[in-house]
Amino acid sequence: MRKILVIGSGKSSSYLLKYLSEKAVSEKLHITVGDIHLENVNKLIKNSKNVNTISLDVFNASSRSEVIKNADIVVSMLPARFHIEVAKDCVLYGKHMVTASYVSKEMQNLNDDAVKKGVILMNEIGVDPGIDHMSAMQVLNRVREDGGNIILFESFTGGLVAPESDNNLWNYKFTWNPRNVVTAGQGGAAKFLQEGTYKYIPYNRLFRRTEFLDIENFGRFEVYANRDSLKYQSVYGLNNIKTLYRGTMRRVGFSRAWNIFVTLGMTDDSYTIDDSENMSYRDFVNAFLPYSPSDSVELKLRHALKIDQDDIVWDKLVELDIFNANKRVKLQKATPAQILQKILMDSWTLAESDKDMIVMYHKFGYEKDGKKHQIDANMVVLGEDQTYTAMAKTVGLPVAMATLAILNGKINTPGVQIPITKEVYEPILNELKDFNISFNEKEVPYLGYNPLNN
Amino acid sequence: MRKILVIGSGKSSSYLLKYLSEKAVSEKLHITVGDIHLENVNKLIKNSKNVNTISLDVFNASSRSEVIKNADIVVSMLPARFHIEVAKDCVLYGKHMVTASYVSKEMQNLNDDAVKKGVILMNEIGVDPGIDHMSAMQVLNRVREDGGNIILFESFTGGLVAPESDNNLWNYKFTWNPRNVVTAGQGGAAKFLQEGTYKYIPYNRLFRRTEFLDIENFGRFEVYANRDSLKYQSVYGLNNIKTLYRGTMRRVGFSRAWNIFVTLGMTDDSYTIDDSENMSYRDFVNAFLPYSPSDSVELKLRHALKIDQDDIVWDKLVELDIFNANKRVKLQKATPAQILQKILMDSWTLAESDKDMIVMYHKFGYEKDGKKHQIDANMVVLGEDQTYTAMAKTVGLPVAMATLAILNGKINTPGVQIPITKEVYEPILNELKDFNISFNEKEVPYLGYNPLNN
Repeated sequence: MRKILVIGSGKSSSYLLKYLSEKAVSEKLHITVGDIHLENVNKLIKNSKNVNTISLDVFNASSRSEVIKNADIVVSMLPARFHIEVAKDCVLYGKHMVTASYVSKEMQNLNDDAVKKGVILMNEIGVDPGIDHMSAMQVLNRVREDGGNIILFESFTGGLVAPESDNNLWNYKFTWNPRNVVTAGQGGAAKFLQEGTYKYIPYNRLFRRTEFLDIENFGRFEVYANRDSLKYQSVYGLNNIKTLYRGTMRRVGFSRAWNIFVTLGMTDDSYTIDDSENMSYRDFVNAFLPYSPSDSVELKLRHALKIDQDDIVWDKLVELDIFNANKRVKLQKATPAQILQKILMDSWTLAESDKDMIVMYHKFGYEKDGKKHQIDANMVVLGEDQTYTAMAKTVGLPVAMATLAILNGKINTPGVQIPITKEVYEPILNELKDFNISFNEKEVPYLGYNPLNN
Repeated sequence: MRKILVIGSGKSSSYLLKYLSEKAVSEKLHITVGDIHLENVNKLIKNSKNVNTISLDVFNASSRSEVIKNADIVVSMLPARFHIEVAKDCVLYGKHMVTASYVSKEMQNLNDDAVKKGVILMNEIGVDPGIDHMSAMQVLNRVREDGGNIILFESFTGGLVAPESDNNLWNYKFTWNPRNVVTAGQGGAAKFLQEGTYKYIPYNRLFRRTEFLDIENFGRFEVYANRDSLKYQSVYGLNNIKTLYRGTMRRVGFSRAWNIFVTLGMTDDSYTIDDSENMSYRDFVNAFLPYSPSDSVELKLRHALKIDQDDIVWDKLVELDIFNANKRVKLQKATPAQILQKILMDSWTLAESDKDMIVMYHKFGYEKDGKKHQIDANMVVLGEDQTYTAMAKTVGLPVAMATLAILNGKINTPGVQIPITKEVYEPILNELKDFNISFNEKEVPYLGYNPLNN
């Protein structure tokens, strides 16, 4: 029996545990799930064979190292900031580890020790980061092996609500961490490459510089730029590329309305509002508008941002009930971003029957034999319900597959890894197709960055 | 003879040295001016009696302490960040010190030691900070002594170009530190009090939430909010005030045009642009606009910010020559803010014949005997030339007067001080009148924050 320890069993672990427990007998796996709260995981595993749960406080060093010592491989589904202690123990006791989170600086620092011990620390193998790395590298490497020279790469991902559950004016509900959605794009200008020159977008313009993408059967989407599109430039081997742009997908119209919150200052997470607890939603809006003894909050907002009465963005604001003078914020010493998040959660929390959707869109431009070519590839994954979400599927399945591949010696490069080598992405992308996670790829005429450029 | 040591003799020291040297004989003063570069100060003092200069490197601890030991009082006209070493020596050797700069945390930490030694460390006694403190406290205390209850205080200062030298479309030239002008308002939302509630303005709205002020004979000005209007709330004794608002004055229309730079991201000082050195001014503008193979930078900018062809803000941009494809930035690894500063300095540097102007405007609202009252007070100071500027006058004269008052025992409260007590402001404001620095004060009907509120 090979012993897998899964630490943490939050929202993203349903498919992970389903996949591993279904393979448990044939692959001779014994799975232990450790968490402080076991209700969720007990519901998920029910009567699965070869799976047991243990109450585990990951901050208790002795019990943590005890269970890690006893495992052959560790999957950390904890929030990203908690991986590092698990990773240190894994290196210490010579155990492999898999996470779906971004490689932190601390994690990267473990590389040399991990290599020495022959330990694999595989990270960023969920979805954005994860499936985006694998699907991009597969096409990039194929083009390069075929003699093509990559000149453009654009990549977009969105966690959205499935069309059948898409019933509000924003065409959006929270399917990922709401806090990250509210503060998205802050912390500095977005930077990317367009046709050989660096371009910069300040936060206040980010949601006004969107572009459109169409996906067959799913209609039109928009994207806004990620803060640092150049993050994986050298990792992907794109140092001489002309256009490099990464972004986040939303349904068309989301960003123009979201920009109202940005412009008013409601997404600011850097200071707290003194009497936030007793504020009404209306008071909150009014805090960002000039004082008037008589003018309404509504008219002040419309005037400040020049919003016409019949503009759909106005209906979007009204739908959120942000002008309600009776609903209280009830958060002590909250930042504007925290208050906005609370208001949005009233409207954008998924209902029990709601389904989510993950969309991904890559554009690859390359030159070959003196001609320019373009490949567009997209993926749409729909959730089944509130347990078996598209999010849990696209995060959990690659993690589970990587875990098994490491146990079976198919992935065997030690050190701090992300899934950008063939040994990792080829088998996993292949197996994901069995779960209806696949890319529609097509050759299109080369458009370059700008659709008018032809 | 009383020995005054003036350290640093930059742009703001002309009136300071003139005042002190004119009093040197009658007041038995001997003035030593220490600086690394003595050309400027030698021009200023010419054949003044009782004044000598010494070459002084303030970072050389032994020569610094040598001259401080030998003085009765030290005036530091150094850039603000260099005061602290001088201040520590002053406390050590029991010498008083005067500066026109904001009290830094390090300076404040010297308070206990200064009190023990009976040393006065007088700061913020130039103009904004300085004359604003003194003139505000004089009226606030008078109203309070007369039984009034302060409910509103607004205070605005601007360093501008004098009307006779006001010959560009922005009605602005650099009379203070250009860098501070370019980065003004950054670092967090502006916060202030309006009719009892806190109001917040994010940076991207700061220059669109201006208000107008009229000054007799000088026409109309606009103000934008300072970042923290509440900074002096408790120091001024205004803890129960309803409206508290501090701001910066510009000529009407400046802010609306300036907001173009803010919106595009050109004032960002947090990252550097890679090939800034070889960029043209036009490239710089284009870095903040989407790529196009054919559309002009001009049209892209107009479209992005919805600027009509006949809008005066467009002429303001053209006047700065920012679309010039031949002028090079010539700054290595510069931030957007540094590049913008360079472009602006081409147009906004004072000519030899230009004169500057300091304007200040206070509004005081108070209740007395159940009625509301308002006092408006304003001050305008014009420069004489590029040496004897309004800036040098309003900074240097209060510093000089405070220095003499300390020597003569008229100011004698030890510790880290700012000029908010009668012992300081009464004699200095009085004497400033002899130099045509005075406030026009008038009772007006109480308007409250909002001019429509009546």
